[in-house]
Amino acid sequence: MKKWNFFSGPAILPATVLQQAATAVIDFNGMGLSLLEISHRSKAFETVMNEARQLVRQLLQLTDDYEVLFLTGGASTQFALIPYNLLPHNATAAYLETGQWASNAIKEAALFGKVQVVASSADTLYNHIPKNYNVPADAAYFHITTNNTVFGTQMHDIPTISCPIVADMSSDIFSRPLTNLSSYGVIYAGAQKNMGAAGTTLVVVRKDLLNKTGRQIPSMFNYQTHIEHHSMFNTPPVFAVYVAYLTLQWIAEQGLENLAQKNTQKSQLLYHEIDRNTLFKGSVAIEDRSQMNVTFVCTRPELESEFLTFAEQNGCVGLKGYRKVGGYRASIYNAMELEGVQTLVQLMQEFEQRWA
Amino acid sequence: MKKWNFFSGPAILPATVLQQAATAVIDFNGMGLSLLEISHRSKAFETVMNEARQLVRQLLQLTDDYEVLFLTGGASTQFALIPYNLLPHNATAAYLETGQWASNAIKEAALFGKVQVVASSADTLYNHIPKNYNVPADAAYFHITTNNTVFGTQMHDIPTISCPIVADMSSDIFSRPLTNLSSYGVIYAGAQKNMGAAGTTLVVVRKDLLNKTGRQIPSMFNYQTHIEHHSMFNTPPVFAVYVAYLTLQWIAEQGLENLAQKNTQKSQLLYHEIDRNTLFKGSVAIEDRSQMNVTFVCTRPELESEFLTFAEQNGCVGLKGYRKVGGYRASIYNAMELEGVQTLVQLMQEFEQRWA
Repeated sequence: MKKWNFFSGPAILPATVLQQAATAVIDFNGMGLSLLEISHRSKAFETVMNEARQLVRQLLQLTDDYEVLFLTGGASTQFALIPYNLLPHNATAAYLETGQWASNAIKEAALFGKVQVVASSADTLYNHIPKNYNVPADAAYFHITTNNTVFGTQMHDIPTISCPIVADMSSDIFSRPLTNLSSYGVIYAGAQKNMGAAGTTLVVVRKDLLNKTGRQIPSMFNYQTHIEHHSMFNTPPVFAVYVAYLTLQWIAEQGLENLAQKNTQKSQLLYHEIDRNTLFKGSVAIEDRSQMNVTFVCTRPELESEFLTFAEQNGCVGLKGYRKVGGYRASIYNAMELEGVQTLVQLMQEFEQRWA
Repeated sequence: MKKWNFFSGPAILPATVLQQAATAVIDFNGMGLSLLEISHRSKAFETVMNEARQLVRQLLQLTDDYEVLFLTGGASTQFALIPYNLLPHNATAAYLETGQWASNAIKEAALFGKVQVVASSADTLYNHIPKNYNVPADAAYFHITTNNTVFGTQMHDIPTISCPIVADMSSDIFSRPLTNLSSYGVIYAGAQKNMGAAGTTLVVVRKDLLNKTGRQIPSMFNYQTHIEHHSMFNTPPVFAVYVAYLTLQWIAEQGLENLAQKNTQKSQLLYHEIDRNTLFKGSVAIEDRSQMNVTFVCTRPELESEFLTFAEQNGCVGLKGYRKVGGYRASIYNAMELEGVQTLVQLMQEFEQRWA
């Protein structure tokens, strides 16, 4: 039976990427050596790193003002590195608190400077994206989370403000074309959703924002170090960068416009069923629903785990909601085929016929 | 033709490890899903993480005073995290400067507290390990690099001192049994030499040394965070941890005593040839020669690149010395078979016959 993988991250990857990655573990580029055992300074790997960075430039249509870095430590490390690099001790950074990861980012920033939370949906368990708020014009930056993996909300509009936006795009990068590049100071994303395997983190940074804190920063935590060494200051996470490179190639072949259209189609199909089916209902405000992580609950709580078992027995895995939230979460990233969503919808209909 | 891989890191891995790792990229544990696309919170991966940590405990014979962490960012990140976590602002850390990585570690530590370099071999391009030095009894810790990958020296004796030793064992961990565990405060190692692929870093830390700096440490840089979350505070580098787990299993099967014996045999064979062969000579003090990274030069500099080409044509790759040092470096980690070293020795003999 075909398995459909709805895990939220690490998450589904294109089958061709997995095949190429497995081959490289045994024999990379016909070199007769594994990708895991060659020097990261070999020409073969330097090409991978450079082309991966170039693909990001191309997909996001970056200007020369921006640098592309592949780092480690996940988005959680960036929660600290962003204020470390961008927030002077006496300055203020503005944050929009739309979920658990935004909340974690706020906590880390407070160690480096002043933090102003301009709006929060914490008191309604992050079931919507706050809309009416003011960002102080003199903020060092305004931090947003474009898609909230845990709760299933997504920002469909990016505000127009006068300070640079720092965006955690971990769970929706490359799911749609990027617009208004110049609004952004930093874009970052852990690879393990739309961009590859766990182990590397993409950071796109506008160079003119750096070196202004007056702070001495350890080499590995300083974006400038990695810019100067083209993400090769020390041994990079070779395999994770390679999988990101393969996934970026796949994304470029598909095209961001096409992927965006497909993502809209998949999420509309699933939300339509959630709204129609008497046994399910959506978890968040309709206008803020995520195209990547579809969260919903069972209207008859006694059947909650029953549906998970039923779905799993029929090939749909990874549907359990985040441990602190419960319910269901269907993550339908770029690599999820329409057929996977159709399968899930059909199982929801069969489940309704059986229990309603 | 069989290829023998003498790269210094990322470096040779056991063939069985590569085979298992490639299989897992397609289908992990018969789950019908790739290791790269399952949740790190799945039972299957949690088992990998726990068993990897348990294997480290077993191989190093750790007591309950120590915790085992799998982090990211390489040893270079630990250069900052060690003083961040262990060195109060007004205290002094002692460092032994035996090579480039030691020198980098010193630079980072100076951002967090006082640093005393107790001895250095920098002025002789690190061609030996300094011997007569005093470590201040009140130092917060004494940092050593047990094996210097770049220059090819290794500490064959660990000094007996009154403060805890912090040891960068990136390039010789698990090459021999660990003795005098209680001397150590921290042992750390990037995985990509004796322990797996690039992308994860092992940190073994004595718990009573933590939380004494009075410093507020960002979550991801705080060892305590990772102890409390069993290295799963955020998404770990899943694939790199899995390859480390497979390699640790292989090491446990071989046994550290056996590996140490084999490493002695391999390095003696190669050093014997270097000393015998009129075309080659060793780069470092005989008593400090490394069993992991054998550095040597050509006595006729005009033949230097000729030998590299000859070796490569005959299957021995990765012999070029570190970019800032030149000459040759044969890295002969655990996974290098005696046959690989015999092949290299034979090529050195043929080269001598041809040119001498």
